[in-house]
Amino acid sequence: MGANLLALPAAAATGTSEILFDLFLVLLAAKIGDEIFKRLGQPAIVGEILAGVAIGPSLLGIVEPGEALEVFAELGVIFLLFWVGLETRVSEMQAVGRTALSVGTMGVVLPFAGGIALALALGEEIGTALFLGAALSATSVGITSAVLIELGMIRSRAARTLLGAAIVDDILALILVAVATGVAAEGGLDTTELLVVIGLAVGFVAFFALGGTRLMASRPRLLHQPRFSESPLLPAVILCLGLAAFAAQIGLAAIIGAFLAGLMVAETKEQHPIEDEVAPLYAFFPPFFFALIGIQLDLGTLLDGETLALLAAVTALAALSKLAGAWLGAGRMEPREKRIVAVGMIPRGEVGIIVAGIGTAAGVVGEQLFAVVVAMSILTTLAIPPVLRRLRG
Amino acid sequence: MGANLLALPAAAATGTSEILFDLFLVLLAAKIGDEIFKRLGQPAIVGEILAGVAIGPSLLGIVEPGEALEVFAELGVIFLLFWVGLETRVSEMQAVGRTALSVGTMGVVLPFAGGIALALALGEEIGTALFLGAALSATSVGITSAVLIELGMIRSRAARTLLGAAIVDDILALILVAVATGVAAEGGLDTTELLVVIGLAVGFVAFFALGGTRLMASRPRLLHQPRFSESPLLPAVILCLGLAAFAAQIGLAAIIGAFLAGLMVAETKEQHPIEDEVAPLYAFFPPFFFALIGIQLDLGTLLDGETLALLAAVTALAALSKLAGAWLGAGRMEPREKRIVAVGMIPRGEVGIIVAGIGTAAGVVGEQLFAVVVAMSILTTLAIPPVLRRLRG
Repeated sequence: MGANLLALPAAAATGTSEILFDLFLVLLAAKIGDEIFKRLGQPAIVGEILAGVAIGPSLLGIVEPGEALEVFAELGVIFLLFWVGLETRVSEMQAVGRTALSVGTMGVVLPFAGGIALALALGEEIGTALFLGAALSATSVGITSAVLIELGMIRSRAARTLLGAAIVDDILALILVAVATGVAAEGGLDTTELLVVIGLAVGFVAFFALGGTRLMASRPRLLHQPRFSESPLLPAVILCLGLAAFAAQIGLAAIIGAFLAGLMVAETKEQHPIEDEVAPLYAFFPPFFFALIGIQLDLGTLLDGETLALLAAVTALAALSKLAGAWLGAGRMEPREKRIVAVGMIPRGEVGIIVAGIGTAAGVVGEQLFAVVVAMSILTTLAIPPVLRRLRG
Repeated sequence: MGANLLALPAAAATGTSEILFDLFLVLLAAKIGDEIFKRLGQPAIVGEILAGVAIGPSLLGIVEPGEALEVFAELGVIFLLFWVGLETRVSEMQAVGRTALSVGTMGVVLPFAGGIALALALGEEIGTALFLGAALSATSVGITSAVLIELGMIRSRAARTLLGAAIVDDILALILVAVATGVAAEGGLDTTELLVVIGLAVGFVAFFALGGTRLMASRPRLLHQPRFSESPLLPAVILCLGLAAFAAQIGLAAIIGAFLAGLMVAETKEQHPIEDEVAPLYAFFPPFFFALIGIQLDLGTLLDGETLALLAAVTALAALSKLAGAWLGAGRMEPREKRIVAVGMIPRGEVGIIVAGIGTAAGVVGEQLFAVVVAMSILTTLAIPPVLRRLRG
């Protein structure tokens, strides 16, 4: 972990104070990256990710990934999606529902099939192939949302379609990971179990997106009830953490729970505009998320010809298959929006890394492939903000 | 750690999602404790500590202490003291400086001497005795501050004296821990090293309390300079984390750095009232600090006659020696303020627990004595809020 500036015996530099120092370094580095990129007229999150690369094992090596940093990163993307949910009305989501469903589905089918085909062509086993396919499937809604917020596009129809598609996408990725894990573990698959996973995921989203928002709309002062807080902020944050934790427990991404909590709280905004109070949490946590993506990269493991060739192939496949799938799924959308949606689905970010990590734990994704998936996630993430900015016009 | 609701193989309940669930449980429990105690007309922080006892190993056992929770608790007390610093002007601190120095010094001398005497009387070795003395020395400025904020007294002269005394107190405790660690490790003490420790601590506080606040007062728009943030919140938070981490690195409590950062930012308040933006962080993190104090208690290890007798003796000694020391140190203060200062110095909270933990690591504080120090910290903390409330009148 971070450097111990002064190794005094009395300094009692416990684990906690080392972690505190790391958190300070990561936040400082991320904001310096942000500052430099803003001054260059470039997207801030790219600056934050590259700051992570700079302080991580790839370059300076002063901060390593660790449990506490991962928790802060997770809360970063949770508060990011909570914020996005707050900016979204469920009625607007319903209006784009059908398109989002087909964008999300097609945007998973092509990368999944492509990943399997590539792995099998390279002589990998079916278990490994399934994991590569699943790692290429899920869009990073965190990355895309941050870019859309930065470009002032988060309330557009294209943004809502992207968000909806990313949720569909995550449910499908969950199912694919369940299938891949089953195959890797036993060479087979328990269909009943799979149906339970699917049922829980769909039921969870439907229950809170429909029932939860209706409850909030009919009782807009519900979050004002507790006496422990003068404002509804803390009740809203508890709801957010609760749904995020619950989503994670049933195998969904925690951010889906956070987004649903945001959707629910958004229905009470006429009563009390809560954004000003969420803003400080939204400013504090997300830089850890973006910086950690960069910190997870280990350039050292990538620097040989074969690995770089594999990285190029996987990245090209990831970008093109997602672009084509989302484009096909977007069907009859207005052309400019269609381009934004298709490009906006490309970043993989954290989700691909998590899936590859599960594959590593299951013993079917090796060190090289894991490093390639991390690098692919970063490359698809770095490339997209400038393109989206140009598409916005 | 937390319960895994659904142990699906596909659920991929990683460490991070377990920790997320724990954080949710701790925040929810703390706020339920707060709610119940507010409705009973009792101090909220007592409700939060007892909520920690309820969910911790002592009763329900659904949450255990862990690294991530400790980091959140540490940030809780950091943002608490940052907030207190924001509410304090350095000129007001200087006005109470001399009294604070004598309250802090006398409030350390008596408990330290008393702790050593008690341990030696019980037949313990000198190393153990020094640690018990040091563990009884340091006031929990976190606990006292939270109570003073809740009672609306944080801007009073008595509160400023308490804060100043608690800082003096912490510097002295640092020196005592350095002495105790030296004795425990080698049976001796390196005087040069000790002087370095003292010089660094005093220099750090003086540099930021005097130079730092002067810099901010003369350049009140300094925190507005970075482009990465529209408001000075994030620059201020980075300053807070940086000084907290630096204080911890030189062996001081991190909260002293946070308080100094708050003092510095307070000098810019005319330009931009930052409290509204710090408030959400101040609402989110501190409940973890109070709940963790309760979670660290393990009632099981205390339930035998000998241990309970030791606990009673240590707690009485801790309360009375601090009360007497602070009272003597307060000298010619106005009697009502003097009572508030003397009582307000009693809570030990986190500092005593940390010191005892260092002693355990050094091999001179056993399991029983550690449990006694934790329980003493909780007892001195629980008893004080109602008394302070009555003294306020």
